[in-house]
Amino acid sequence: MTFPLGPNRYGKSGIRLATVARDGDQHTFTDLDIQVELEGDFTAAHVEGDNASVLPTDTMRGTCFALARDGIDSVAGFTRRVAERLFVASPAVDRVRIRVIAHPWERIEVDGSPHPHSFRPGTGGDTVTTLTQDRDAEPAITGGVRGVRLLKTTGSAFSGYLQDEYTTLPETRDRIMATTVEATWGTTGPDVDHRALGIAVPVTMTATFARHDDSESVQHTLHAMGGAVLDEHADITWIRFRMPNEHHNLVDLSPYGLDNPNVVFVVADRPFGVIEGTVARDGVEPPPLPG
Amino acid sequence: MTFPLGPNRYGKSGIRLATVARDGDQHTFTDLDIQVELEGDFTAAHVEGDNASVLPTDTMRGTCFALARDGIDSVAGFTRRVAERLFVASPAVDRVRIRVIAHPWERIEVDGSPHPHSFRPGTGGDTVTTLTQDRDAEPAITGGVRGVRLLKTTGSAFSGYLQDEYTTLPETRDRIMATTVEATWGTTGPDVDHRALGIAVPVTMTATFARHDDSESVQHTLHAMGGAVLDEHADITWIRFRMPNEHHNLVDLSPYGLDNPNVVFVVADRPFGVIEGTVARDGVEPPPLPG
Amino acid sequence: MTFPLGPNRYGKSGIRLATVARDGDQHTFTDLDIQVELEGDFTAAHVEGDNASVLPTDTMRGTCFALARDGIDSVAGFTRRVAERLFVASPAVDRVRIRVIAHPWERIEVDGSPHPHSFRPGTGGDTVTTLTQDRDAEPAITGGVRGVRLLKTTGSAFSGYLQDEYTTLPETRDRIMATTVEATWGTTGPDVDHRALGIAVPVTMTATFARHDDSESVQHTLHAMGGAVLDEHADITWIRFRMPNEHHNLVDLSPYGLDNPNVVFVVADRPFGVIEGTVARDGVEPPPLPG
Amino acid sequence: MTFPLGPNRYGKSGIRLATVARDGDQHTFTDLDIQVELEGDFTAAHVEGDNASVLPTDTMRGTCFALARDGIDSVAGFTRRVAERLFVASPAVDRVRIRVIAHPWERIEVDGSPHPHSFRPGTGGDTVTTLTQDRDAEPAITGGVRGVRLLKTTGSAFSGYLQDEYTTLPETRDRIMATTVEATWGTTGPDVDHRALGIAVPVTMTATFARHDDSESVQHTLHAMGGAVLDEHADITWIRFRMPNEHHNLVDLSPYGLDNPNVVFVVADRPFGVIEGTVARDGVEPPPLPG
Repeated sequence: MTFPLGPNRYGKSGIRLATVARDGDQHTFTDLDIQVELEGDFTAAHVEGDNASVLPTDTMRGTCFALARDGIDSVAGFTRRVAERLFVASPAVDRVRIRVIAHPWERIEVDGSPHPHSFRPGTGGDTVTTLTQDRDAEPAITGGVRGVRLLKTTGSAFSGYLQDEYTTLPETRDRIMATTVEATWGTTGPDVDHRALGIAVPVTMTATFARHDDSESVQHTLHAMGGAVLDEHADITWIRFRMPNEHHNLVDLSPYGLDNPNVVFVVADRPFGVIEGTVARDGVEPPPLPG
Repeated sequence: MTFPLGPNRYGKSGIRLATVARDGDQHTFTDLDIQVELEGDFTAAHVEGDNASVLPTDTMRGTCFALARDGIDSVAGFTRRVAERLFVASPAVDRVRIRVIAHPWERIEVDGSPHPHSFRPGTGGDTVTTLTQDRDAEPAITGGVRGVRLLKTTGSAFSGYLQDEYTTLPETRDRIMATTVEATWGTTGPDVDHRALGIAVPVTMTATFARHDDSESVQHTLHAMGGAVLDEHADITWIRFRMPNEHHNLVDLSPYGLDNPNVVFVVADRPFGVIEGTVARDGVEPPPLPG
Repeated sequence: MTFPLGPNRYGKSGIRLATVARDGDQHTFTDLDIQVELEGDFTAAHVEGDNASVLPTDTMRGTCFALARDGIDSVAGFTRRVAERLFVASPAVDRVRIRVIAHPWERIEVDGSPHPHSFRPGTGGDTVTTLTQDRDAEPAITGGVRGVRLLKTTGSAFSGYLQDEYTTLPETRDRIMATTVEATWGTTGPDVDHRALGIAVPVTMTATFARHDDSESVQHTLHAMGGAVLDEHADITWIRFRMPNEHHNLVDLSPYGLDNPNVVFVVADRPFGVIEGTVARDGVEPPPLPG
Repeated sequence: MTFPLGPNRYGKSGIRLATVARDGDQHTFTDLDIQVELEGDFTAAHVEGDNASVLPTDTMRGTCFALARDGIDSVAGFTRRVAERLFVASPAVDRVRIRVIAHPWERIEVDGSPHPHSFRPGTGGDTVTTLTQDRDAEPAITGGVRGVRLLKTTGSAFSGYLQDEYTTLPETRDRIMATTVEATWGTTGPDVDHRALGIAVPVTMTATFARHDDSESVQHTLHAMGGAVLDEHADITWIRFRMPNEHHNLVDLSPYGLDNPNVVFVVADRPFGVIEGTVARDGVEPPPLPG
């Protein structure tokens, strides 16, 4: 008995592609991890084993390499060129999705000057650019960052919360708050300067995290960060955060006859809280949370 | 300026909880990794820093521990009890989502007999149970597995595919196919025997993978596996797979003056193909692919 | 100013090589992760940038691929052939060290029979074979396993230990003991049947772990396991274990008004105890612990 | 039959301890991952299950927490205090080894000024401090770093190497060189300023990597880095490096009818070269490579 094929897609993940651009002695190093996904009518491949309309995932990789030959000025522009090509190459395709994680590298300082061709990993997390495009339609491009670790040793409280018989957490007006921010944002259109936003938005986020010293919760700081991003970046219409609460728990030193006035903490890996929230301009419909 | 809060949720991840059940000398060890997520009206917490309606994520953990006190007969039943409790404890909550990964352990064989209280990790991957429940509604529960690694050294081909100028992959009628299956399935209702399905469905999947020796692609095998599951398990209405194509590439030994008649392969980590597909009974509307 | 070169070596890690052997319809799949290290006189390369005596690490990989062309009957034999070749290829080399991790795969059962060419990961951990050979000398080959996870829900105690003012751990006569065994063993000579030992020794270890129900500590069980291996395997002269103590801590449910009679445990990732110990036959000098 | 106990040790790994020091508004955040290992006469514990001389690993953790109560001025000093205490607490102990990985955090810049209590991860890798001390002897303390990722897009060659029939690597006078440095160093005595060296040595290493533009190999750059460290830091007597060669391979675009003048590279995870080397002052006996 044959059962119908439901929602499906396929693609290539983990395409690790780097480019070097040269402006005289000054080199720029671009370090990408690319994921390509195609949706369309692939029923024959699944049901009958007929591959006639299947573009191999290896070809998706080759396409990325070939289209990088003349350099990658902007990641968003590169995703547009790859998507355009995939619609041409694969007539069965209805939708292309490309996600590019860019690992930042910054110039090594030598004797106080940035070196022209030597690099170390940048701070501030990877940038994440996602293009989603239906055939014969405009692409939607979101920007984002991930892996932005932040920590403050004061200026954070958690109290006044709901209590029940399974509550043992002590209230505190002064705790360590630590998180690793993942943020995704939408813009007024695909033609904004995604590269500039990828640099500027994390600066806003990070400074707001630092300044927000009356934090009552991760939720509270999240909303402040989102508001600051919308305030300072007119091209951004919504921003979504995923912020784990990476607990640093005060160690009880009383069994050793010692007090612990917020000096010694144990760093916990698990469990961890996870806070997700979206901040949007009035009238903007942000996307739902991922499933 | 204050911007409105959009879609949001929060919860606890990485709750590592184990239980021991004793039937005379026979012990049963249950090893869970639990994630709890709540949605509801948490605007005051985000916008004003008012935590009055926030159930701490630490309490979610405490709730899981307390409700495990009398044992965990079935993971699906446990998720129902936790969800019920969270709706009571937290009036602001509209929706509860609980995902439980169960790590399998099986009895060590000693002198040909299973040992009553000594265990080693089971084969066949973790089981994944997800409950999603809206307040005053019935829960939806999906079953699943992840981490089911499978490999066959013949009986797999990939040829007849679309070719363009970026295609370099050679066609083959005999290759290694390897994957690590992640599968999620829906059932006729929440009261089916999820525990039994968690054991039986992987057996069907695995046997079908082994038997399907005229495989033209991962897609083709995926559809065969889905069909077999629906054929053999009347309680299942749809099944979705995520199956990476873990490439084992034939090594070109010709530079060394040697042939390579399908003997020596290099195992690649990246890049990897990813195939996702759903198989559903006629008239069933399976969920969309995750975003 | 030039400073002298001290101890040095170089090589290739992460050579992922798989082979398929065919005996009629019955296939055997061998899945290796190979590390090659060379020591010798490489002063000119370090100090002067003169590569004349440097065999590229890429060639070490090519050598492994080429020598696998006719199959890998035994991993120990394969390491001997590769070492022999490297001494010939690279006159500057004084010492070769090759470590091979073999990932086990076992046949999928279909309708009660093992399938001839379909596999899933085996239980019982990876095997680790290490050859160390000086030029013009016999190789020393050690066997081993790693990743052997074991857990028992009773039959383990920890009490009567040293107490001081920093001790808060409660004594217990009944706890969960869990570990992931790494074991390395030496033999009476390089020509013993390393493949057979790689299968048989973990069986002995695992059964002893299960049976040792008067365990007073991880140390105590470690020594019992080592003794059993030496008792049952005459070719083995010493065995060294590294056994983390993977803590499963009893959850204190008293804040919730509940007792916890060894039912609910929290699984801790960190910190973890680590116990290392060697058991050797009388008169045998086992190697020191790794630095 | 009872077999003698050979080399053994035990301890606690993964003690995640953080401290906050306050100088008015200026906070300093210290983030440590501590491993403690003890050697001594623990035969009774292994052979007879007699724990009377066993200090629990949980107590080692408690000792670290208690001794951190008054702050951690220097990691080297902290390891000395912990070691001293462990010799007192545990009479059976002959040797203490403590390894501390410190994760660096640096102040977030807000409006051009470093924030007093908000931090992000520092660049330049973790520092690693290891104390080894025998009872009634002076401690030996080594400093180190790990995770120092460095990359240069030119100024690196690899040619003139040994060729044989398994060599396929093309020679190049211009390649990308990338590595993640792990370095360990010894000093003239335990009382040098380990904290200052932990900051200054990576600066020397990194600048030398950048400047060394006539690199003929990783070995060549390694030796240059070691020489620069010894030149600039009189307290250091030897330094050992482990430097993987993280390959960035030029993509062959000729199948697509394109050239590739050092523009597009594929980033490989595996296999990778590994180069280890020591540079020492004349007359200094550096330690052997780890086993």
